[in-house]
Amino acid sequence: MKTAPTISIGICGLGTVGQGVWKHIERARPELEARLGAQLVLARASVQNLKKKRDVTLKPEQLTTDPLSIATDPSIQIVCELIGGTTIARQVTLAALKLGKTVISANKALLCAHGPEVFSTARKHGGRFFFEASVAGGIPIIKALREGLVANRFRRIYGILNGTCNYILTRMEREGLAYPVILKEAKELGYAEADESLDVEGWDTAHKASVLAYLAHGTWVSTRQMVVEGITQLTQPDLTFARENGYAIKLLAVIERDLERDVLSVGVYPALLPITKAIANVNEVYNGISVSGDIVGETTYIGRGAGQDPTASAVIGDIIDAASQLVRGGTYLPTAPATKLALTPPAALRSRHYLRLDVKDQPGVLAKIANCTAKAGVSIASLVQRPSEKPEAASLLLTTHECSEAQIRLTVARLARHSCVLGKPLLLRIADF
Amino acid sequence: MKTAPTISIGICGLGTVGQGVWKHIERARPELEARLGAQLVLARASVQNLKKKRDVTLKPEQLTTDPLSIATDPSIQIVCELIGGTTIARQVTLAALKLGKTVISANKALLCAHGPEVFSTARKHGGRFFFEASVAGGIPIIKALREGLVANRFRRIYGILNGTCNYILTRMEREGLAYPVILKEAKELGYAEADESLDVEGWDTAHKASVLAYLAHGTWVSTRQMVVEGITQLTQPDLTFARENGYAIKLLAVIERDLERDVLSVGVYPALLPITKAIANVNEVYNGISVSGDIVGETTYIGRGAGQDPTASAVIGDIIDAASQLVRGGTYLPTAPATKLALTPPAALRSRHYLRLDVKDQPGVLAKIANCTAKAGVSIASLVQRPSEKPEAASLLLTTHECSEAQIRLTVARLARHSCVLGKPLLLRIADF
Repeated sequence: MKTAPTISIGICGLGTVGQGVWKHIERARPELEARLGAQLVLARASVQNLKKKRDVTLKPEQLTTDPLSIATDPSIQIVCELIGGTTIARQVTLAALKLGKTVISANKALLCAHGPEVFSTARKHGGRFFFEASVAGGIPIIKALREGLVANRFRRIYGILNGTCNYILTRMEREGLAYPVILKEAKELGYAEADESLDVEGWDTAHKASVLAYLAHGTWVSTRQMVVEGITQLTQPDLTFARENGYAIKLLAVIERDLERDVLSVGVYPALLPITKAIANVNEVYNGISVSGDIVGETTYIGRGAGQDPTASAVIGDIIDAASQLVRGGTYLPTAPATKLALTPPAALRSRHYLRLDVKDQPGVLAKIANCTAKAGVSIASLVQRPSEKPEAASLLLTTHECSEAQIRLTVARLARHSCVLGKPLLLRIADF
Repeated sequence: MKTAPTISIGICGLGTVGQGVWKHIERARPELEARLGAQLVLARASVQNLKKKRDVTLKPEQLTTDPLSIATDPSIQIVCELIGGTTIARQVTLAALKLGKTVISANKALLCAHGPEVFSTARKHGGRFFFEASVAGGIPIIKALREGLVANRFRRIYGILNGTCNYILTRMEREGLAYPVILKEAKELGYAEADESLDVEGWDTAHKASVLAYLAHGTWVSTRQMVVEGITQLTQPDLTFARENGYAIKLLAVIERDLERDVLSVGVYPALLPITKAIANVNEVYNGISVSGDIVGETTYIGRGAGQDPTASAVIGDIIDAASQLVRGGTYLPTAPATKLALTPPAALRSRHYLRLDVKDQPGVLAKIANCTAKAGVSIASLVQRPSEKPEAASLLLTTHECSEAQIRLTVARLARHSCVLGKPLLLRIADF
C-alpha cells in the first residue's frame, strides 16, 4: 500500500497570525489532506517567550526560541516566516531559500526592502517563495494579478491597503470626531499599534504598494521613489467638504502605468475619491483594491486586510499551493520580466487638487490667494469659505483644475509664506478615476 | 541549445470570445512566452461559416467547420470550447478529455447539465478541465474559491452573475422606465439576446450558481433543485419602494451552507439588498460576488461578467495556467470532496419578504389582507398604500417579518384568490445579509 506523502511545516513567529495558521490547519486538516493527497505535519514553531500562554497547544519539544533552527531543519519543507521586520526575518527567509525550501511570508516590509535579494536567492537555489498574505490578507489579490489576470497589462491599480487608517477615517467620517480622539480609541481597542506611525504616515501602505507594483510590472519601486503622505493632517471640514461634493477621503495606494509611454508611478496619499466608486465605499478595517487591465477592464476586490483570521486564511492558501507543488510538481509562473520601467518623476504627475487654507478674515485676502494660484498657472475650479476654528480667521476650501504636482507644490509653498495664511495649508489630490 | 517547448492551442468556436482570445494572445505573446518559457501556437479554429469576415486573420488551412477535428487533432494540446450549448460542446469536451487533452471552457450550461460526466471523464483519462470563464468572466472567482480561500468553509456566497439583467435593472432604476421599454433598447444595443428568456428568467444565473456551489461545496445542484425566479415582473413602484427604504433590487444567486447542520441551499431570485452592501452598488453590466468564509470573513469581487474582452481575459488566464502545468508539471488541487450535501427544501428557507398587491380601492380591503396574512402566521412589518396604475385600485406595498417560504407562498396563493386583489401579487425576498 502506497502511503500518502508527508509535508512538514515550521512556523517562525507563533504570534497572533501564527497561532491562527496552526489552529485553522488543525480544524480543516481532514478536507485539506483529502484534497492534497498528502499529510500535513505541523512540526515546530519559534517563539520569543517559551512560557507565554497561547491559543494552541504544542509539545515542549516543538517550541524553540531560535527561528533559524526551524529554517534550517532538514525535516521541514515549508517555513512560514511570520516574525515581521527586516532583520531576523531576512536571515530566516534567506537561510530557508538557500536550502531549496519553500518560504511563506506575510512580510511586506521585508519584500519592499529586500525583494530582489529574496527572489534571486529563491531562483538560485530552487527555493519557492509565496507571499499572498503580505498584501490585503483576506483578498487573494496576488493570485489574481499573477494568474487570473495574466493576459492583462495593468493601467491602474489603486486601493485601500491599510485597515488601521481606514478604520480611523471611517470613524471620523461617521462620528464627526477629530483624528486624535479616534486614534486614541483605536489604540485602546487594538486597531492601532502603540507606535502608530508606520500605519498613519502611509509607510505600511507604501510597502504593500511596492509589492503590488513589482507583481504587476516586474519593477521594484522603493518608498524613496514614491510620494508617501499620511492621514494625520485631515480634519472634519475636509471630510465634510468631500461628502458634500460627492467624494469620500481614503488613504490610497496608486500604481499607474502609462502603456503608451511605458512609464510607471507609485504613490501613497489620502485622496478625494468619487463616492460612486466601490473603493470609496470600503469602510472600517476592510481593504479594497481596484485593478484595471487593458483587456479585462476594471475589477475590484474587497476584504479584511489584516488580523489573525484573514491573514491566516492567506497563509494557509499559500501553504496548500506550496504543498500541492511539492506533492504533484509544478511551479508558479514567474512574475513579469523585470523590465525596470522608468518612473514618472512625482513633480510631473497631474491631478485635480483640494486645498484647505486658514486665512485672516480681512478684506483683500481672497484676491491675494487668487493671484498667487494664478501666477503658478493653477486654475481654481471651486471655492467655499467657512468659519474657521481659529479666532478672526476663515477657512478657504478650494478645488483646482488639473495641474502638475510641481505647479501645485509651488503654489502651496508660496501661499504658506503669505502673512494672511495661518498655519500650514492642507493639500489633497482628487482621484478622478 | 535547448529549444523552448511548444504548446499548441485549438479554438472550437471562433465567435466573439474566440476572436478575443486569438487577438489578445497575439498581442501579449512576447511577455506570456517569456514567463512560460514555452512557445504558444494558435493552431486551428472551428467556425460555422468559413467565409464570414472576422477581426483576426487565419490561413484557410487553419479554419474548419468541424470542431471535433480540433478536439481530436493529435498536435493540439489545449482545446478551447467556446461553442456554447450542451450538444456539440459536450461531444467536443468529452472527446478531448478522453484523449488526455486540456479543455478550457466558458460553458456554464454544459457544466450545470453534465458537470459530473465532464469531471469524471477528465479524471479517468488524465485530461484537465479549466472553466474560469464560465462564471463572471472578468473576475477570477473560481481561482479565489478553489485556491486562495482554500482554508475556508463557505457560509454564504451570493451575487450578481448576469450582466444583462443587471444592465436592465440599473437602467430601470436610473431612468424610471418600464421593463419592456428597457429590454427593447437593451436588445437594440446588443446587451440582451434576441431570445432574452435565458437571462431574464434567471436560468443563466442558475447555471452559474450551480458551478459555484459545486466548486465551494463539492455538490452538484441542478436548476430543478433551486428556486429560480427572474426579473420580468418588476415595476417602477418596486424599485422606488426599495430605494426609499435603503435597498437596491438585484437579481441574486444565493448559495448558503448551514455549517452546523451541514445543509446547502441554492436559489436565484430578485431581492431587496441593503444599499450598504457592495453588491447592491454593482451596476450596469458588471457582476459582483460576495464570498463569506468561516476564516476570512466576507470578501467581495466585482468586474465585468461577459463580453469579448473580460471573457477572453479569463480564457487566456486558464490557457496560461494549463500551459504552465504542461511545461512544468503540477495539477490544480481537486475540488472539495464530493460530500453530496443534503439540500434545504426550498419551502423551509426563511426570509423577510416584500409583497406588492394591486387591490380594489374599497373600505374593508386592508382588514381582509391583514386577516389573510395573519392566518398563515405571517407578520406584517410595514405597509404603505400608493395609487395604482389600474383604475379604482390601490397598490399595497408590504414587508413581512421573517417567515418560511412555505408560509409566504400559502399567503400569496390565498391573497391571489381574494376578489379584492387584482392581478398577480409580486413577492420578493429581502436579503438581510
